[in-house]
Amino acid sequence: MRSFLVTLSAGAMFGAPVAADPLRDAAAQFYGPLPATVTELEGHVATPEKVELGKKLFFETRLSASGSHSCVSCHDLAKGGVDGLATALLPDGQSGLRNTSSVLNAVLNTDHYWDGREADLAAQTVGPELAGLAMINTPEAAVAALKAIPAYAEEFALAFPGEADPVTADNLARALESFEATLLTPAPFDAWLAGDDAALSDDQKAGLQIFMDKGCAYCHFGPSIGGQGYYPLGLVELPGIDIKAADEVAQAAAADPEAEDFVFRTAPLRNITLTAPYFHSGKVTDLAIAVDVMAAGQLGSPLAPEETAGIVAFLGSLTGTLPEIAPPTLP
Amino acid sequence: MRSFLVTLSAGAMFGAPVAADPLRDAAAQFYGPLPATVTELEGHVATPEKVELGKKLFFETRLSASGSHSCVSCHDLAKGGVDGLATALLPDGQSGLRNTSSVLNAVLNTDHYWDGREADLAAQTVGPELAGLAMINTPEAAVAALKAIPAYAEEFALAFPGEADPVTADNLARALESFEATLLTPAPFDAWLAGDDAALSDDQKAGLQIFMDKGCAYCHFGPSIGGQGYYPLGLVELPGIDIKAADEVAQAAAADPEAEDFVFRTAPLRNITLTAPYFHSGKVTDLAIAVDVMAAGQLGSPLAPEETAGIVAFLGSLTGTLPEIAPPTLP
Repeated sequence: MRSFLVTLSAGAMFGAPVAADPLRDAAAQFYGPLPATVTELEGHVATPEKVELGKKLFFETRLSASGSHSCVSCHDLAKGGVDGLATALLPDGQSGLRNTSSVLNAVLNTDHYWDGREADLAAQTVGPELAGLAMINTPEAAVAALKAIPAYAEEFALAFPGEADPVTADNLARALESFEATLLTPAPFDAWLAGDDAALSDDQKAGLQIFMDKGCAYCHFGPSIGGQGYYPLGLVELPGIDIKAADEVAQAAAADPEAEDFVFRTAPLRNITLTAPYFHSGKVTDLAIAVDVMAAGQLGSPLAPEETAGIVAFLGSLTGTLPEIAPPTLP
Repeated sequence: MRSFLVTLSAGAMFGAPVAADPLRDAAAQFYGPLPATVTELEGHVATPEKVELGKKLFFETRLSASGSHSCVSCHDLAKGGVDGLATALLPDGQSGLRNTSSVLNAVLNTDHYWDGREADLAAQTVGPELAGLAMINTPEAAVAALKAIPAYAEEFALAFPGEADPVTADNLARALESFEATLLTPAPFDAWLAGDDAALSDDQKAGLQIFMDKGCAYCHFGPSIGGQGYYPLGLVELPGIDIKAADEVAQAAAADPEAEDFVFRTAPLRNITLTAPYFHSGKVTDLAIAVDVMAAGQLGSPLAPEETAGIVAFLGSLTGTLPEIAPPTLP
């Protein structure tokens, strides 16, 4: 965002024909172009060795107790980094309670779960994922499985030089986080933010204006276009029971006066056209309906059909290009 | 094989320094180098459009009733085209009865199942896989799911031009077969067959000699180094009950005089170092033990430890290079 403004000023200074664009100026309050790379992570740096190891671990089914599920099983890189299901199907054939969040651009999110459990991505990879929610495994068992594969000992030693015993759950998490930090998807919206007027269609520009005017951008801001805070679903108007997840329905039925309200993370909106179904419960499959539920429920401001269509058009400009990730050959 | 002999003769004719190599001459009775491409399939040709469509379908979880499982879920390209499990874990959390066969080089196999049910690869992809064994779905439901996605109608029309209704189970199978025909993995053994003496180590050459002398090559022959016929496991000496699959154990316990003997396909041996555990039951995890079971059981000829080690070294030369397959973005 800052570098764009510098470019604009420099252009003006030297008399280059940079047209003033009020829409881009307004958008610059909320958004900057996607970074080309992210290597400075929480407490460590994503080195090429960590990225390479993390890529293998991302495809490694031996991290699950059943040996059947890897990160890719639910965070499918062919499908926007999710599984396309309402809620994840676990190795035991049971469904989880929450819709799978995308790993794409996840490094840019401040928060990493619908329910706000993990503040950083590295903790997330070994926390709920391994510890029962998705892999039905423990960090200890996953580390033991990796230690039984000699090639991994070598790769961990390369990725974490100078450590006496580098195959640890923390380093497993750091390697996965380093690989996931490469999963950035530059989109037409980024090109437009950086000055390419033709990158958005007129419909998309009109939709962006509506998105900001209606107030969507007050929660869906920052590099992930969301992913920055937690709110109850139904801030203004409660959504119907048909959008609630099974545990919420159960809590509502029990009518427990001690029960806390459910709050959910503002969804990051990059690649939202690829990641249906929507919401924490995965109960809404149509993006236009999801937009309408948000406008009515969170903003108390129902949309006219052409406003919904405009916002959906704008959201299409957030669908980016994934780096080509060929599955590595595992040791 | 034929083209190699032609090359050799031409070299000899023009006085080039081609040393006679009895081992390579002996191997040429059983093996020829892997083809660079395979496009002539049973009754159709693998066009680039079919390959591109088939690649998407190979990653398409909407082919399963649960929406959770694609071909890749069990035929993991990061793990030699298999799942690394004794027997596949199905979407309902139950295990299948047979070890997953690799899709790598599968186009070169004459037969495609442990039990010899499907003679060609295209029939296999829509037969048992969709019809309940792996995807817990029907061809009709899979076709209906694809028809609900407009982008697939366009891609099927491109891949099968001139057809009024191209989205069919047969065409789904042809597209998948076309993509799978690209999954060829040239290995050091192929380079050696083609004349590169240094492609095999001395240990591997010695192991190849043992492999042929002991009789392994009489079943494990052809471009897949196997995959050409069906035999009872325990042709000479019955293996222990610990190698039998659950359905065989049940049959043995029932002692039904009408029951037919189980026969199993000779395993293709390309990439065998990547595809543990072994046998139709997946009950043997160590390649050396699998070799010993085969020598004793199929040939009645137990191996000395150094013979086993030699054969294992030779088998390592069959581990090839997979083309880089980045997951496509699905419609």
